[in-house]
Amino acid sequence: MRVVDLIMKKRDGGKLTAPEISFLVQGFTRGDIPDYQFSSLLMAIVLKGMEPDETAVLTQKMIDSGDVLDLSGVPGPLVDKHSTGGVGDKVSLVLAPLAAACGVRVPMMSGRSLGHTGGTLDKLESIPGFRTDLDHGRFVQCLREVGYAMIGQSERVVPADRRIYALRDVTGTVESIPLITASILSKKFAEGAHALLFDVKCGSGAFMKGIEEARSLARSLVKTAAGLGRKAAAVISDMDQPLGRKVGNFLEVEESVDCLQGRGPRDLMDLTYRLTGWMLALGGKCGSAGEGEEMARARIVDGSAWKLFLKNVAFQGGDVDCVLRTEKGPHARLTRPLKANGDGFVERIDAYKVGVAAVVLGAGRSRAGDRVLPGVGITLLAVQGDPVTRGDEIALVHGEEEEKLVEACRLVESAYAIGCNRSEPGPRALEETAPQ
Amino acid sequence: MRVVDLIMKKRDGGKLTAPEISFLVQGFTRGDIPDYQFSSLLMAIVLKGMEPDETAVLTQKMIDSGDVLDLSGVPGPLVDKHSTGGVGDKVSLVLAPLAAACGVRVPMMSGRSLGHTGGTLDKLESIPGFRTDLDHGRFVQCLREVGYAMIGQSERVVPADRRIYALRDVTGTVESIPLITASILSKKFAEGAHALLFDVKCGSGAFMKGIEEARSLARSLVKTAAGLGRKAAAVISDMDQPLGRKVGNFLEVEESVDCLQGRGPRDLMDLTYRLTGWMLALGGKCGSAGEGEEMARARIVDGSAWKLFLKNVAFQGGDVDCVLRTEKGPHARLTRPLKANGDGFVERIDAYKVGVAAVVLGAGRSRAGDRVLPGVGITLLAVQGDPVTRGDEIALVHGEEEEKLVEACRLVESAYAIGCNRSEPGPRALEETAPQ
Repeated sequence: MRVVDLIMKKRDGGKLTAPEISFLVQGFTRGDIPDYQFSSLLMAIVLKGMEPDETAVLTQKMIDSGDVLDLSGVPGPLVDKHSTGGVGDKVSLVLAPLAAACGVRVPMMSGRSLGHTGGTLDKLESIPGFRTDLDHGRFVQCLREVGYAMIGQSERVVPADRRIYALRDVTGTVESIPLITASILSKKFAEGAHALLFDVKCGSGAFMKGIEEARSLARSLVKTAAGLGRKAAAVISDMDQPLGRKVGNFLEVEESVDCLQGRGPRDLMDLTYRLTGWMLALGGKCGSAGEGEEMARARIVDGSAWKLFLKNVAFQGGDVDCVLRTEKGPHARLTRPLKANGDGFVERIDAYKVGVAAVVLGAGRSRAGDRVLPGVGITLLAVQGDPVTRGDEIALVHGEEEEKLVEACRLVESAYAIGCNRSEPGPRALEETAPQ
Repeated sequence: MRVVDLIMKKRDGGKLTAPEISFLVQGFTRGDIPDYQFSSLLMAIVLKGMEPDETAVLTQKMIDSGDVLDLSGVPGPLVDKHSTGGVGDKVSLVLAPLAAACGVRVPMMSGRSLGHTGGTLDKLESIPGFRTDLDHGRFVQCLREVGYAMIGQSERVVPADRRIYALRDVTGTVESIPLITASILSKKFAEGAHALLFDVKCGSGAFMKGIEEARSLARSLVKTAAGLGRKAAAVISDMDQPLGRKVGNFLEVEESVDCLQGRGPRDLMDLTYRLTGWMLALGGKCGSAGEGEEMARARIVDGSAWKLFLKNVAFQGGDVDCVLRTEKGPHARLTRPLKANGDGFVERIDAYKVGVAAVVLGAGRSRAGDRVLPGVGITLLAVQGDPVTRGDEIALVHGEEEEKLVEACRLVESAYAIGCNRSEPGPRALEETAPQ
């Protein structure tokens, strides 16, 4: 088998066979196939696509490139959720204890902030002492004792994905439904979940701006998972405006605590209930996502999800006092109020601009390896549909450095559209793809 | 300017600007842009194409990557010919002295054998002593004194092309009309010719198998040259069957001698006259290719082209005795006759198979750097339209090693289609693209 022949086959719209895909993934991961050949192949895949069964084979070969976690000692059902990334998306912090409180176990491996979007690991680590690098034994113990555990991806899981993603990032080959599908699914399945729920974000603050693209990805994820014999469902959710009212690492922990204590903002809670409902349905705890939603609401009301959250923070080494009394947690040195520049209603808050403002403040990374600041971020005081008068405080911007604060304020101000039209926020969950 | 943004622009079907193309070509040639980014860009170009003015800019930036030969001291017109490569294509050896005898000067830089096709340099160097590495001064002197000179490409001319071609070869990105156009034109224009004639080969023995593809390349070459302010024309010629009757380095020198002495096979001579006619028209020596053809025929009849050939061989260090008495030149140790396996007519000889047989015998290279053997090759005794009876000798296969001789005989035998249909060979020149 010659690499160049396989590149030409894909270039000409051909379908790669399982042995060919295996040869390519293994060869590249081992370093036998040079980057310049693999990037040419990736561009051919971006432009010529892959059929669903090719994508399934690619996913499996990527899983085979590394270790697969053995969670056989953990009583199921094991259900995980994956979000494609958004602004203010702290759903995982609320949903994991909530689903666990309803009886599914959640072995969650998350990522760090990427581009203008936040990362669950960065949010968790803003809780002083919180460790996301539990070893396998502790991870399993946490799952058994708490019902959920939240860690980072092990270096030994899907090394093919890390190598391929690094290359895609610099060769203009990120935007491909089959490649995104294989990247997401390979990691999630190597992590031992039995079933998966995908939150495919769509809109200004998401990587996928349009609904068509989000729909393609949602279908590809569910279909490819089915092709690999795994249960999966997807919810396409609106990420045109920030989710909830806080953006930034510890700010989002604060808001998660509010949610778990029954005081969360409606958009965030409704989406969290719906996603949790789907997880319960996937885990066989109820007959439908709707039923699951009701079960979840009850676990907020009775405080059991909140209790599991505290138990998890304690297990993973976090300072429980900081989540019980969030004023003790990390907060930025400077806070600047932002005032409305006119009268009317908040018509829209552009999530992308708020996300970029958060990165400017230091909540995210401009490049891999950058350190993130725990306390910085944005608090949205007025959101879509709220009436405002010139001079009202509409947001608070929290930063460590004056210069960055000024830049972030300008970005957040430009994110706000204030006008004479009053429109209530629509539902976040836009469409759903049921398991196949 | 970020490379990844330019890759994405091309990937999405955008048009690269002149500063962008300059940045890419310079960056890659200097080694600032890594192979893996450039190969991804190349694949995007293969699949999304380039507009004519993009191709012209690419060509110019590639020329700018190295030296441009100064032939201002040579009285014009300077006209060169480029063939896309075929089997038995010794046209350059006859056409260069012929065009020079008609009053244009031919500064010819040629290549070596590639794949199943021969290379002019390898053919010339099969003449004992012949040097194709003249320095600039000697090249200019040869052009002035003889009227034509034939050398290899200098390392300092279009370094961008060498780097890009080496990458294309291993990344499945050879097959692209704009990339082929820029590669051919940049080399030819850096070599100082005022006008160019292209012989775009088409058929089994060519790199372009179909007429549509050949037509696209012919048009692209002529149009792009015009965009750069240079006169060019193209002839698409049939390369489905070997050109002439001999294939192999010194065997083709022998046949070229026959041609120059007025004893050349008709298909080869007719094409050579036509191509020379076009060169004379491009050089302003006559009003049309047809007129030029007639001028060329007269220079064979009066022996002046043959005299220039001898003068050139002497100037470039070749053993003139070997071309005057070709039996003194290099010949293979073994010669095996091939016999007809049936009665009827030769319906077709597959040029590709004959080309591969020549490579097997050692006339060409399986990989860059291989040494070629001067005397090996194939003599076609019966060609299309000839009647044959079982047992007649239809070809001679000349080789140095028994094992390779056997393999080559098998290939040549399989190249012959003998059947009951008698068809005369059609004209080699199929279509022409006039200068724009």
